[in-house]
Amino acid sequence: MLRSHTCGELRIEDQGTEVTLCGWIQRRRDFGSMSFFDLRDRYGITQLAFNEETNAVILDEARSLAREFVVQITGIVRERSNKNPNLSTGDVEIEVTRIHLLNRALTPPFTIEDETDGGEEIRMKYRYLDLRRNPVKNRLVLRHQTNKSVREYLNAKEFIEVETPYLIKSTPEGARDFVVPSRLNEGQYYALPQSPQTFKQLLMVSGYDRYYQIVKCFRDEDFRADRQPEFTQIDCEMSFVERDDIISVFEGMIRKVFLDVRQYDLGEIPVISYDDAMRLYGSDKPDLRFGMTFCYLTDVAKGKDFAIFDQAETIVAINVTDGNAFTRKELDAITDYVKRPQIGAKGMIYCRVNEDGSLKSSVDKFFDREALSQWASVCASQPGDLILVLSGDHSTVLKQMNELRLHVAGLKGLRNPENFKACWVVDFPLLEWDEESKRFHAMHHPFTSPLPEDENMLDSDPGKVRANAYDMAINGMEVGGGSIRIYNKELQAKMFKLLGFTDEEAKEQFGFLMNAFEYGAPPHGGIAFGFDRLCAILSGTDSIRDVIAFPKNNMGRDLMIDAPSVLNKHQLNELGLSN
Amino acid sequence: MLRSHTCGELRIEDQGTEVTLCGWIQRRRDFGSMSFFDLRDRYGITQLAFNEETNAVILDEARSLAREFVVQITGIVRERSNKNPNLSTGDVEIEVTRIHLLNRALTPPFTIEDETDGGEEIRMKYRYLDLRRNPVKNRLVLRHQTNKSVREYLNAKEFIEVETPYLIKSTPEGARDFVVPSRLNEGQYYALPQSPQTFKQLLMVSGYDRYYQIVKCFRDEDFRADRQPEFTQIDCEMSFVERDDIISVFEGMIRKVFLDVRQYDLGEIPVISYDDAMRLYGSDKPDLRFGMTFCYLTDVAKGKDFAIFDQAETIVAINVTDGNAFTRKELDAITDYVKRPQIGAKGMIYCRVNEDGSLKSSVDKFFDREALSQWASVCASQPGDLILVLSGDHSTVLKQMNELRLHVAGLKGLRNPENFKACWVVDFPLLEWDEESKRFHAMHHPFTSPLPEDENMLDSDPGKVRANAYDMAINGMEVGGGSIRIYNKELQAKMFKLLGFTDEEAKEQFGFLMNAFEYGAPPHGGIAFGFDRLCAILSGTDSIRDVIAFPKNNMGRDLMIDAPSVLNKHQLNELGLSN
Repeated sequence: MLRSHTCGELRIEDQGTEVTLCGWIQRRRDFGSMSFFDLRDRYGITQLAFNEETNAVILDEARSLAREFVVQITGIVRERSNKNPNLSTGDVEIEVTRIHLLNRALTPPFTIEDETDGGEEIRMKYRYLDLRRNPVKNRLVLRHQTNKSVREYLNAKEFIEVETPYLIKSTPEGARDFVVPSRLNEGQYYALPQSPQTFKQLLMVSGYDRYYQIVKCFRDEDFRADRQPEFTQIDCEMSFVERDDIISVFEGMIRKVFLDVRQYDLGEIPVISYDDAMRLYGSDKPDLRFGMTFCYLTDVAKGKDFAIFDQAETIVAINVTDGNAFTRKELDAITDYVKRPQIGAKGMIYCRVNEDGSLKSSVDKFFDREALSQWASVCASQPGDLILVLSGDHSTVLKQMNELRLHVAGLKGLRNPENFKACWVVDFPLLEWDEESKRFHAMHHPFTSPLPEDENMLDSDPGKVRANAYDMAINGMEVGGGSIRIYNKELQAKMFKLLGFTDEEAKEQFGFLMNAFEYGAPPHGGIAFGFDRLCAILSGTDSIRDVIAFPKNNMGRDLMIDAPSVLNKHQLNELGLSN
Repeated sequence: MLRSHTCGELRIEDQGTEVTLCGWIQRRRDFGSMSFFDLRDRYGITQLAFNEETNAVILDEARSLAREFVVQITGIVRERSNKNPNLSTGDVEIEVTRIHLLNRALTPPFTIEDETDGGEEIRMKYRYLDLRRNPVKNRLVLRHQTNKSVREYLNAKEFIEVETPYLIKSTPEGARDFVVPSRLNEGQYYALPQSPQTFKQLLMVSGYDRYYQIVKCFRDEDFRADRQPEFTQIDCEMSFVERDDIISVFEGMIRKVFLDVRQYDLGEIPVISYDDAMRLYGSDKPDLRFGMTFCYLTDVAKGKDFAIFDQAETIVAINVTDGNAFTRKELDAITDYVKRPQIGAKGMIYCRVNEDGSLKSSVDKFFDREALSQWASVCASQPGDLILVLSGDHSTVLKQMNELRLHVAGLKGLRNPENFKACWVVDFPLLEWDEESKRFHAMHHPFTSPLPEDENMLDSDPGKVRANAYDMAINGMEVGGGSIRIYNKELQAKMFKLLGFTDEEAKEQFGFLMNAFEYGAPPHGGIAFGFDRLCAILSGTDSIRDVIAFPKNNMGRDLMIDAPSVLNKHQLNELGLSN
């Protein structure tokens, strides 16, 4: 090794020892005849001390070192006169006796500090320098710890990791595949997996009982903020289980991850039905860090000659505790927020609950004191609260109110990324009706089984059938989802039919899975967690890009290596491609 | 859970307990009024007992179950009268009181037994059934354990796993890339990584210090036996290290894996120079499970009027202990073996060392007793031994003798796949001269540094420069290799020049890495292990296909899912592809 210790290792007990450290010059401070340098490596920072009086030659040498130069230094550990309690090595410094310059460095295009002056594009281009910054490094270390924690849990539960192939078959159904031309089978293509779904089900047919994989998946979508063409999943499947078994096993996993990585106890993880989630939060991934559940005024607020309400299908409200403190100006800003085209509310009605119990609404012309007290009663409002009301088409207004609820919670500081609240959402509809194609789509995927008690409605009222499925949301973001699968060939055939597949299409796309099911498929179910999303939540960051070492931009480009790129003629010819 | 226990769990202590098991019907034995079934799951086999006298109805029910049916059974654990010591559950059986048929099964196209009657193609097509067989399952479980053991070791050594991207940039140099057309950047392509080489070096520039990843890699080669288009690597890199540090860290890893997975102590792992490996074994991945090192007769066997030797550049021999026991017929077969076109020897000379010490060669006409005793002396032969001799062009005859050595060792049972012997090979040549292109190629890759003591020959005699590189071989197979990297920009530029890259080509292909090296690159080095190969060796199997859950055939096809396949017009159009 070129070093005896790392830069995060030395303590007061080491004083007097001769040590050799390697690292990067982070910072320098000159005080007349003395200079202090911070030497950085992955493990921390150690102060190097130089003094003209004790060693003028080496002070000169040191002063020729610039930021980000790589050096190996030897010296004696001394107690610092000016200790730094914020640094694990803050009690000591090295009195340097020898400097060996390992490599020079150009001046970085942005500062390598926790708060940098570099814009996103330049940091993407020089990602290898951005990765040196503490916040970025800490998130990748957290990602590693999360991976380790997940594996420990699943290994202990007798799950085995099985690697499934990356070069598979394209299925036109669903999201767009990335494809890979086959040179040995000209005119044919592999696809990169969007998930190992069929393979993990085959492994259950093979009797592997408990499978997992932390695995890259690929989806060729039109990129939106916070979507990556390649992403990582914790992919799991179990045999001989029912829904509650899956919920209990994976609740345990997530609980352990938060304890290991954030020393955070998630507490009880409630199980909420899809209907309740929509009714109370207007979202199938509710943020449970705070209340403000929806209250319905439809019954009490109609028929008062207020046309907007009278024409609305649904009138929904939230009660904001202590919300009366919002100024008129703040309320106007909130109204503007919900009227933005992305949310699309026509307007927002509010009703202040004053400290003396009196009520003051923005629609006093239509609603008298008695009418408003009905609102307050439905919303269980207390003096000092604020009632916010939206109205309109049922499903639209729920979505709008969801946005409003999250926005107001944000204003009130209730969405602290260092607090975590998880929940399960269950009993999703099995099928979604698509007006455009005039047919049902699978809400999860075509292998999701109906709830046993709803199976009899598959013929009579398929839209009403609930899925034996479950999603996990944390802080309002979906982190995982799965289902108990169909393992019976007849039921699977019926599903394909409902989804508008002809027998040929089903056979063409899923033939091998359907075949496999004829040879003794066990009851099974599984779940997949978005590993990038989970790490982002654990890191308290909004963007999955922040937890990916080498992310792509919104056009799917890697700005650092400049990919994708054109191929040369020879490569194209070999692949039988003409462009 | 649909079961109270697994099929590998019950013991004599459980007798009297009511249990519920799930699994597949493996086998059935009828004895008059009694029937016994073996119920199988991943964890083992449990015997189910049915008796007409105690429960005729359920016996009837049971007898309707065929092989590979999936059932849930409930019953009472009883002591077996006829115990099976080969089975962990062999002391007990279940007196079944209830059968719930979970799924029927067609008769499998081959038997699901340790020794199956299915040919390779049918087993590939029905891979999900082949995966049920014990030998296949055990190898995948071993693969999981190997993965786990590797991670435990590297995690404990402060390595962190960082995921590098799969959609990267194509480099025309080296092996052929699989490419992925980019829909959002028409006419441009990503490439799938052949290894994360440049990314792991960038991570060192970023200060990550100790990186690893167990990662899929892709190479579009003309398939040979035991090559797969996608394969898995244990990919590692360290900063501030020298060769011996890497050797010591990864020797520790391999040692732990063999202990954990096979309870096998690898013993001392010798470090052999490339020159010695070639001289003694004619191979840079010598099989050290046995001796038979090469002996050179060039000096003593020339000039005896035996034209074949006189014209040969090199005359090389091995001494086969107790080899005099080979019959004439066996020796003829060995001669035929080395004369096969794949090996291409013109012939083989032998010399028997009789028990009485007399010598009898196949070329007695040319070599008298005295001449032959010189052979025996060079080869340190003992009575009862056999000397085998090949001659010809130096590098060709070494390769042939390597094959002969391995073949004879095989015949003598010295290549037991349950014995393991590892070694390091170091001091490879840095460059290989390619006659066709009249230029040097990098023996490892262009980032491999020369041995410090040889660096001064880079200008004067580049062919003589040795690489600061190391390979690990186990039982004659290469399992890993790596090098200390060049981290100095000038040296890297010199290397590219030696390899015939123009400045533009180097910049075009490796520009981002070269740039990164200008911002403070630390000394670093790394290694990659072939994970499939390592698992194959640990499993005692010759083929990496045996340790891959869903392998492809020699044409790169997955026979089960029938990939690659043609795309539909819509998909091709979206990608701007015309075929």
